[in-house]
Amino acid sequence: MPADSDLILSVNEEVDKDLFKTLPERKKHEDFIRRAVDLLVERVVFGRSARSSKVVEWASPEDIKTAIDLKPRREPVSHDELLKLMADVTRYSVNTGHPYFVNQLFSSVDPYGLVGQWLTDALNPSVYTYEVAPVFILMEEDVLKEMRTIVGWPDGQGDGIFCPGGSLANGYAISCARFYYYPEIKTKGVYAVPRLVLFTSELAHYSTRKMAAFMGIGDDNCIQVKTDKNGKMDVDDLEFKINEAIEDGATPFLVTATAGTTVYGAFDPLVAIAGLCQKYNLWFHVDAAWGGGALMSRKHRHLLNGIEMADSVVWNPHKLLAAPQQCSTFLIRHKNILKQGHSSDAKYLFQKDKFYDTSLDTGDKHIQCGRRADVLKFWFMWKAKGTEGFEKHIDTLFDNAKFFLEHIRQREGFKLVINEPECTNIMFWYVPNCLRGLENEPDYRERLDKVAPKIKEKMIKEGSMMVTYQPQGDLPNFFRIVFQNSALEHKDMVYFANELERLGKNIKV
Amino acid sequence: MPADSDLILSVNEEVDKDLFKTLPERKKHEDFIRRAVDLLVERVVFGRSARSSKVVEWASPEDIKTAIDLKPRREPVSHDELLKLMADVTRYSVNTGHPYFVNQLFSSVDPYGLVGQWLTDALNPSVYTYEVAPVFILMEEDVLKEMRTIVGWPDGQGDGIFCPGGSLANGYAISCARFYYYPEIKTKGVYAVPRLVLFTSELAHYSTRKMAAFMGIGDDNCIQVKTDKNGKMDVDDLEFKINEAIEDGATPFLVTATAGTTVYGAFDPLVAIAGLCQKYNLWFHVDAAWGGGALMSRKHRHLLNGIEMADSVVWNPHKLLAAPQQCSTFLIRHKNILKQGHSSDAKYLFQKDKFYDTSLDTGDKHIQCGRRADVLKFWFMWKAKGTEGFEKHIDTLFDNAKFFLEHIRQREGFKLVINEPECTNIMFWYVPNCLRGLENEPDYRERLDKVAPKIKEKMIKEGSMMVTYQPQGDLPNFFRIVFQNSALEHKDMVYFANELERLGKNIKV
Repeated sequence: MPADSDLILSVNEEVDKDLFKTLPERKKHEDFIRRAVDLLVERVVFGRSARSSKVVEWASPEDIKTAIDLKPRREPVSHDELLKLMADVTRYSVNTGHPYFVNQLFSSVDPYGLVGQWLTDALNPSVYTYEVAPVFILMEEDVLKEMRTIVGWPDGQGDGIFCPGGSLANGYAISCARFYYYPEIKTKGVYAVPRLVLFTSELAHYSTRKMAAFMGIGDDNCIQVKTDKNGKMDVDDLEFKINEAIEDGATPFLVTATAGTTVYGAFDPLVAIAGLCQKYNLWFHVDAAWGGGALMSRKHRHLLNGIEMADSVVWNPHKLLAAPQQCSTFLIRHKNILKQGHSSDAKYLFQKDKFYDTSLDTGDKHIQCGRRADVLKFWFMWKAKGTEGFEKHIDTLFDNAKFFLEHIRQREGFKLVINEPECTNIMFWYVPNCLRGLENEPDYRERLDKVAPKIKEKMIKEGSMMVTYQPQGDLPNFFRIVFQNSALEHKDMVYFANELERLGKNIKV
Repeated sequence: MPADSDLILSVNEEVDKDLFKTLPERKKHEDFIRRAVDLLVERVVFGRSARSSKVVEWASPEDIKTAIDLKPRREPVSHDELLKLMADVTRYSVNTGHPYFVNQLFSSVDPYGLVGQWLTDALNPSVYTYEVAPVFILMEEDVLKEMRTIVGWPDGQGDGIFCPGGSLANGYAISCARFYYYPEIKTKGVYAVPRLVLFTSELAHYSTRKMAAFMGIGDDNCIQVKTDKNGKMDVDDLEFKINEAIEDGATPFLVTATAGTTVYGAFDPLVAIAGLCQKYNLWFHVDAAWGGGALMSRKHRHLLNGIEMADSVVWNPHKLLAAPQQCSTFLIRHKNILKQGHSSDAKYLFQKDKFYDTSLDTGDKHIQCGRRADVLKFWFMWKAKGTEGFEKHIDTLFDNAKFFLEHIRQREGFKLVINEPECTNIMFWYVPNCLRGLENEPDYRERLDKVAPKIKEKMIKEGSMMVTYQPQGDLPNFFRIVFQNSALEHKDMVYFANELERLGKNIKV
């Protein structure tokens, strides 16, 4: 999308010095807002969804700084210049809604999610009390209850919150678990009990370790359990490490299992882990940030069998269900722990002498005070598609992933990392001509490690697709393609393989 | 805004069963998106900004549940029904952009902030790497650097991040401070040092205590320092309590001063507190979430004198500067602490063998992984208004606050809680006829305590304005009016006083 000159109607247009005021006024703003909205709808929403558009217009930091005056200035700029800035920001931003953006555990700009988000912004709520956010409070209740029902808790009982991302949501699991067993920690700190330890797999998302550090437990005390060849937690090793910690005088309190690991999309054996948690009286948390969406498919929800035994669950609709960034939930089977574990009863906000039922003032369950309403966009998508629409969406993603898997399984130059991946991430090496048949050479791995970064660079500079790569343990860099966009079709799967081949076949490493 | 019947074109309209796909397509979505945008611009943005519109359409939870089918359903609904849902959600949502919404430490729906937010949503980025968010990464750098320059750090040196709210931003201060003095805490937990203690005033925002609990320190170890009659931290008591903690064998590491307290808008004596921090080798953090905006006014920035000595600062542009929810920053004078204290070097995301300068992949400084781009809306406002526009905005707010203060100081029935408030919050009692002259009666306070809730109930049910109330220590419930909307004028100040009198004069308590 070029920064068309037609946007620059007049660079010398006089700037209204009264535009600092924070209220939309027809006389001052209508023309600008109409033109801005037109740009958004035409150039961004529809202009960027076509397969023929670029996924990314690569530019170096210097290029971008030259193209866009990013620095805040003392003087204001005109409406025309603002529109040009919008176009330029768009031009140099990665097109995460493009069908060929398969680079992260999020993608798509869902049309209903987007409209829901736009409405949220226009209402500009902060969700802490019924007084200032009545609809959002009730909407959160209904959406979270339905999600708990889908998890499998009887009558959707329990509690839940929207969080700014899955990392913090996994932090809530740590907080709730330790409060449940040792409520004195809230006032006395973790000093109140001997060294707390929690367990998660070595392939779990890094947030559990990061949050353990942030929350005063220390990341050494987040003990990493081994995984099998498919990336699933080794339950024997879990039990071994629990016992080891107990013998060491530490205080185990939590196991975080993963339903859909970040790289492999592996589902930990939830039923077996639940059994161990019961045996050792540990909190059973399931990080289903990535894989949770599969619960909405009758065909695929078996992947999460056992999740109904969890004490808490993280499920991010902005991942597999393709809600806009950011939409992340923490669900908990125990009714009062979030409130008791986090409340501080600030009298300036949570007044008890209001004229309505103040149990609806749910903000005190959160560690945030002001909080965006991340529920509406997801609720709006749910209304637009129905649960049956989400089910079709999920089934389409898994079908595409299966098709792509079988396509590259048989195709020359592609080599699978995991033969039967469980989720919609497919991991593979692309082996260029120069490396074929050299698998037994001593420098093969080292050379293969350089392939993905080289292909990725060409890919980004051409803007024809975006797929990520990473090493894992001893394995050299491999690609991981991730499917979340249900508008993709089988022909797109062939496009991805063709494109990788085109970019990679003749590279030299 | 009534839920007009013209929105319901045809309730039996056939629902396209293919609408589950997550890609905007002209054929399927253009008509809907155009109509939705029209509703947003006409009915929400302009329809709700008029003073003649209602601030709130009060409805009980049961009323709302009857009016809006909030429950997610198996079946999708039609585009017409979606538009009706948008109208209904709007109708029952509090109009936080209304000039007479003076209820919280946020308000306004700034036209430029809104357009910036809408653009962000249409681009749907997650800000962790230059690869997927190039413009946003660079924009954050420039905006944060300019904010640090305004704080007063030489050449804007240091580091900073956008956070999901001031509470978490205050948590980052705790995290950085303890890592700075005791880096081993990251791996070993707070167990590595004897009981950590931090200090903040008894009138500081509750988030510091809440985060101390969440972060394993325990809220008892967040020691509350006394305040003077204007709500400012008592520096003698601070020193006394530091010494008390040391004698008690605890480990003081942090003082969180406040620049603009939540209720009184008081500014702690930063210079004196900085001196004590130096003397006792403690991290000096300033929570300027609320008052930080005053730094942009040459006339009012003296309120924050001493902030340039801070090790870290929280400043929320969504508060005094009226950026959309949510826009909150954590600024730090030390260059590498955020990174060292929080990084986990996840290899699937922060690959070091990329073809560009990976020091731009700043996501590992955060405890979040996926993260919304909260910078663009604020940057866009800054472009539209310039620093000079923000300065006028701030000066207008303070001018209005002063005018309102002097108006009610002289007006019968109004009684100030703080005679010379420092920020744009004005605290007062409204004394109805039935209580005048009874100040010395034994039940006066108890009766006065009931006045604000009663007026507030009438106010909400009429929807004519929204202002909050709270008790404080021994003081019975008083009103706190908060100015952040620079479109307000002196005549609005008189409106507020008239309205409080109209609603409150004849109530019986």
